[in-house]
Amino acid sequence: MPTSTQPPTKSQSGDRSTPGPAAPATMKAIAVIPGQANTMHVRDVPRPAVSDVPDGRGVLVRVLRVGVDGTDKEINAAEYGAAPPGYDYLITGHESFGRVVETGPNVTELRVGDYVVATVRRPGSSIYDRIGTYDMTTDDMYYERGINLRHGFLSEYYVDDPEYIVKIPPGLRDVAVLLEPLTVVEKGIAQAYEIQRRLRVWRPRKAAVMGAGTIGLLAALVLRLRGLEVTVFGRTAAPYLNSELIQELGARYESTVTTPIGEGCRRYGPFDLIFEATGASSVVFESMRALARNGVLVLSSVTGGDRMIEVPADRINLEFVLGNKVMVGTVNANREYFEAGVKDMTHAESQHPGWLGRLLTHPVRGLENWRQLLDTLTNAQGAIKVYCEVAEDA
Amino acid sequence: MPTSTQPPTKSQSGDRSTPGPAAPATMKAIAVIPGQANTMHVRDVPRPAVSDVPDGRGVLVRVLRVGVDGTDKEINAAEYGAAPPGYDYLITGHESFGRVVETGPNVTELRVGDYVVATVRRPGSSIYDRIGTYDMTTDDMYYERGINLRHGFLSEYYVDDPEYIVKIPPGLRDVAVLLEPLTVVEKGIAQAYEIQRRLRVWRPRKAAVMGAGTIGLLAALVLRLRGLEVTVFGRTAAPYLNSELIQELGARYESTVTTPIGEGCRRYGPFDLIFEATGASSVVFESMRALARNGVLVLSSVTGGDRMIEVPADRINLEFVLGNKVMVGTVNANREYFEAGVKDMTHAESQHPGWLGRLLTHPVRGLENWRQLLDTLTNAQGAIKVYCEVAEDA
Repeated sequence: MPTSTQPPTKSQSGDRSTPGPAAPATMKAIAVIPGQANTMHVRDVPRPAVSDVPDGRGVLVRVLRVGVDGTDKEINAAEYGAAPPGYDYLITGHESFGRVVETGPNVTELRVGDYVVATVRRPGSSIYDRIGTYDMTTDDMYYERGINLRHGFLSEYYVDDPEYIVKIPPGLRDVAVLLEPLTVVEKGIAQAYEIQRRLRVWRPRKAAVMGAGTIGLLAALVLRLRGLEVTVFGRTAAPYLNSELIQELGARYESTVTTPIGEGCRRYGPFDLIFEATGASSVVFESMRALARNGVLVLSSVTGGDRMIEVPADRINLEFVLGNKVMVGTVNANREYFEAGVKDMTHAESQHPGWLGRLLTHPVRGLENWRQLLDTLTNAQGAIKVYCEVAEDA
Repeated sequence: MPTSTQPPTKSQSGDRSTPGPAAPATMKAIAVIPGQANTMHVRDVPRPAVSDVPDGRGVLVRVLRVGVDGTDKEINAAEYGAAPPGYDYLITGHESFGRVVETGPNVTELRVGDYVVATVRRPGSSIYDRIGTYDMTTDDMYYERGINLRHGFLSEYYVDDPEYIVKIPPGLRDVAVLLEPLTVVEKGIAQAYEIQRRLRVWRPRKAAVMGAGTIGLLAALVLRLRGLEVTVFGRTAAPYLNSELIQELGARYESTVTTPIGEGCRRYGPFDLIFEATGASSVVFESMRALARNGVLVLSSVTGGDRMIEVPADRINLEFVLGNKVMVGTVNANREYFEAGVKDMTHAESQHPGWLGRLLTHPVRGLENWRQLLDTLTNAQGAIKVYCEVAEDA
């Protein structure tokens, strides 16, 4: 008689577990109430299942680590972010790393036990979405796990289609939580090289990276792996951890406290490629003037303010025209940039063993310690990557 | 005895002309003294010969028409321009049209009687020069016929290598003097499309052209030939000749007197491609904000001043980043853009017969009338293309 309370599908599924408490249907997650500032909290939410994805294509992933960044702070400040339809909360976290625990019957790409990272944006309806380049969507509405209209990864499990889940070699398991931020760099640099195919014989030699935070460090890494001479401009006076990491790559660090960008560019530039990652729009306009002829400036900073600045408009335009220069903005990433990131991480571990791991400065253990996670993200001195250790890799 | 004064090569060359004065060894040309303002004058200069080009590769061209533009004014004002080595004067004129009168023994590409237009820039030493893309040179020094270190075409004849001379179909002989300005447009739009290959499936629909002068009109033409919906922004209140020409292409003309660019963009944009040809750097920064997602802004204006303007730096950067937008500067052109221009002119004469000819508003007959040429260029109301009729097409 007690078994009659079980839903019929349960017994039909051939559950071979011994009698006892049913598997919990919920899990813990860190969430916010979009539209209300400072509402971060931990809550019990329904645990996803492979059957949530149609056509037997579900992949259930146990979350191991999730990185946090300025986006998470801004979502908690209710500057943007939206809950999925039917929910009044949004599970945050978009920099994931986990391990496959179950796959639907029609999943051939991944197996139980595989290490994985999920992409963030999900396709809309534009022509760019339809060919897998959802990072180039022209839709007004966009879908991003942990950011806008789709739950994120700061939870015990997530489920998704293998189209959005990228396999990680076991050799990268200790650093793979850095893959999502790395994809910002991978996309920006790939766009620059794609654009420069217009030159037929582009041979970039000197690069500058504006900003020495996580993105700036990863940009310096990738540009060094491409063989470029790299100068990184940061605000903090050297030496400190970030400047040391930059020098270990064989790159140059210049503090703008002692060397203004213009002077640094005269000394070490002009630059064939500049990757802007400061979050300060004034640096964008300074960078325009530091480009070499035929050079390309990649903009990756989200500058949410309303800052007005005075710029030498005639000179900027003239230099762009006479020098055939290019500026390109870049946001988000699609699967191909995650795959490129895996290759560069592998290359990095071979070329600069241990370097990536040194970026993982501030782990916080457990979803229940969300206050500490947020506090570390907001206040920690010298933090490069703050991340939540959601679970041990058993 | 009189024949003994003839140089021996003269009789050896098999001259079958009746006895009389020898062919003049000089010709007329319009020149300036670089570095000194307002020195334009007509002078006798050595007439070039096919043997001036090595390896039997000389092509001697009789000049029929030469267009003038702001560059010629600025060279006469000594703002820039340099004489070729060994000369204290520079023959001006870079928008040429002529007819082949003699070819060296190793010229197979062109024949006597062919209509031709010469390219302007000549290669330096960079890798881009070495593959024929001298418009992308990274050298500090550049060579441009009629502008810098090489004589131009405002003369009775010129000689050059067939590498720099483009054949014109007889059907275009009445409008081919417009080919050189058209190549600015051809290069800019080709660079935009090359850059947008990064999108794999770019399908531009709406374009804007900033400026309704010669370059703006030609940009509107080429973009209409590509099938885009085109809005041209100009300063002058419609109707006038330029606005009528634009409407005849099936494009839209908006005067910024009645419709500020921002408002025009809200009404007719955002634009997938913007071609900037106003010469006003403030328009460059307004144009940045009128781009659609994934859009491309082509800068072609030479802005020689030192104007400072205040810009919404945070917003411009944010929109470039979130919208994956591109800005590219473009200068000059190489042979492939002249060849593309010939095709588009042919297309234009088929699609909009007579339209190109209506741009040839102000002919001035004869090199000796250089004062009238300069005066027309400087003062003529409603001028689109001012050009010198150097010789009749006999």
